[in-house]
Amino acid sequence: AAAWDPTPGAAVLTCDAAAAGTHFDLAYMDPEDVGWRAMVSCQSDIAAMGFVPTYSTVTVGVTGREEVATLEGVYAGMAQACSLYGGRIVGGDVIRAETLFVSVAMVGAAPDADGGPQVRPMTRDAARPGDVVAVTGPLGGAAAGLRILRSGIAHGAGHAASLAMAHLRPHPAAAAAALLIGSGVRCAVDASDGLAPDLGRICAASGTGAVVRPWDLPAEPGLRETFPDEWMGMALSGGEGYQIIFTAPPELFSRLSEADSDVVAVGEVVEEPKGVWVATRDGTMLRPPGGFEHFGR
Amino acid sequence: AAAWDPTPGAAVLTCDAAAAGTHFDLAYMDPEDVGWRAMVSCQSDIAAMGFVPTYSTVTVGVTGREEVATLEGVYAGMAQACSLYGGRIVGGDVIRAETLFVSVAMVGAAPDADGGPQVRPMTRDAARPGDVVAVTGPLGGAAAGLRILRSGIAHGAGHAASLAMAHLRPHPAAAAAALLIGSGVRCAVDASDGLAPDLGRICAASGTGAVVRPWDLPAEPGLRETFPDEWMGMALSGGEGYQIIFTAPPELFSRLSEADSDVVAVGEVVEEPKGVWVATRDGTMLRPPGGFEHFGR
Repeated sequence: AAAWDPTPGAAVLTCDAAAAGTHFDLAYMDPEDVGWRAMVSCQSDIAAMGFVPTYSTVTVGVTGREEVATLEGVYAGMAQACSLYGGRIVGGDVIRAETLFVSVAMVGAAPDADGGPQVRPMTRDAARPGDVVAVTGPLGGAAAGLRILRSGIAHGAGHAASLAMAHLRPHPAAAAAALLIGSGVRCAVDASDGLAPDLGRICAASGTGAVVRPWDLPAEPGLRETFPDEWMGMALSGGEGYQIIFTAPPELFSRLSEADSDVVAVGEVVEEPKGVWVATRDGTMLRPPGGFEHFGR
Repeated sequence: AAAWDPTPGAAVLTCDAAAAGTHFDLAYMDPEDVGWRAMVSCQSDIAAMGFVPTYSTVTVGVTGREEVATLEGVYAGMAQACSLYGGRIVGGDVIRAETLFVSVAMVGAAPDADGGPQVRPMTRDAARPGDVVAVTGPLGGAAAGLRILRSGIAHGAGHAASLAMAHLRPHPAAAAAALLIGSGVRCAVDASDGLAPDLGRICAASGTGAVVRPWDLPAEPGLRETFPDEWMGMALSGGEGYQIIFTAPPELFSRLSEADSDVVAVGEVVEEPKGVWVATRDGTMLRPPGGFEHFGR
């Protein structure tokens, strides 16, 4: 356990866990990647609120069959992520379990806590009809990378290596998040489950609908070339990436896209119909696919 | 993720995890017990600092082979513990894993936060030579209960049922903890690993030694009768219970033992020798046993 004096402003708490066989596989991933991803998952969740990671606790379940170097690698990956994006590890445990897992909990603080105003976190329930739906950068890379890693496509070929890295070493959109909350954005979530499902969470919490224009989706570099038939589905519904989805009135969005050229409008918030919809070129709207596997062209 | 406005005073963060086969077994435990114990473990850790649980996140790993009722039971047990001892569940996940596990992280706040002084948590490093070593109540019940549950001793017989309950439904020493910190105690830890190992943590952090008088150890009701040869070892080294071990100057201890008749002195803090020692009737001192199995009479 750890104790500290809170800074002014709200505090936030989040957690995430990943288990071998379900969320990662040491067959195609280094232990360092496992630790890095576990920590980044929480850092991204806090970044999507516009907050900064402060402290974390880590529980690692081990089967007893792992090499010591494996566990050292997991902790090294977590330390790397903390060193870059914050959230000092202040407690935790190694326990015996029948499967290797990593469970991280993380506390975050308001970004401008040094005597500044009490900043409220960005939330999912603040989308308003007429808002622009936007993302902080390219999508689909982590989903493509996972496909590449699982299928054994040679990583060295073409864009495969960089797409694989998008899965193995994702980064929280921390700098963009600071811009968003500092500029007055009120509604955001990270795209860890994918643009469509996470935008759906914004719609559910805000009581709105959202229409996505798939031809405007920014694709991870190399994604279109590597998966010409599937890139759009990956960008729309592929998870494991950590861009931030946010909504903002058009004039605020314009200022943000000028300040950060990676910020891209991908749709708009509507009063009706509720939920997430995908626009088509002929003007009709479709429900987003459940997964990218069945959404090709 | 959840957000809140911190109250005045320090904040604390702790976590604990338990896995099927290692920390619990549904063969002798209800799912409600599993949830209760996972939550109480963190509540006790925070109580031992003199703080109060405020928010928690919970990750449950499921194999997919559990009945829905099992998972509902785990969450019901957690809800019961939160309802009694605090730490509202504000986030978490259910993930797929090869073993059932529960991982809880919990944030706590200073107990008198409403405009009162900023209270510092009790810590392990504040023992001073000459302090009394004391505990907040009877020891050994949970270790005895685990033995009974694992060995299949009929629970209905004699004290076996109440000892089993000490393992299945332990309670954090929350009321005693409030008395301790409110009275000025500075050094405490919970006895979740057992009196000797957890007192050892106090000694290591404080740079002191401690001498325990085993004949003064308060035993869980029925412990001596049920395990006449082993009760002392269970009280000294048995884990899974949640009494608080604390140290205090003799005059402060006297006031505490008058205020709470369950508070019992079990030894004293010494400058040398470092570490935990067990007094014997003839005046020699022994190192505490590693486990209660080999410490009979």
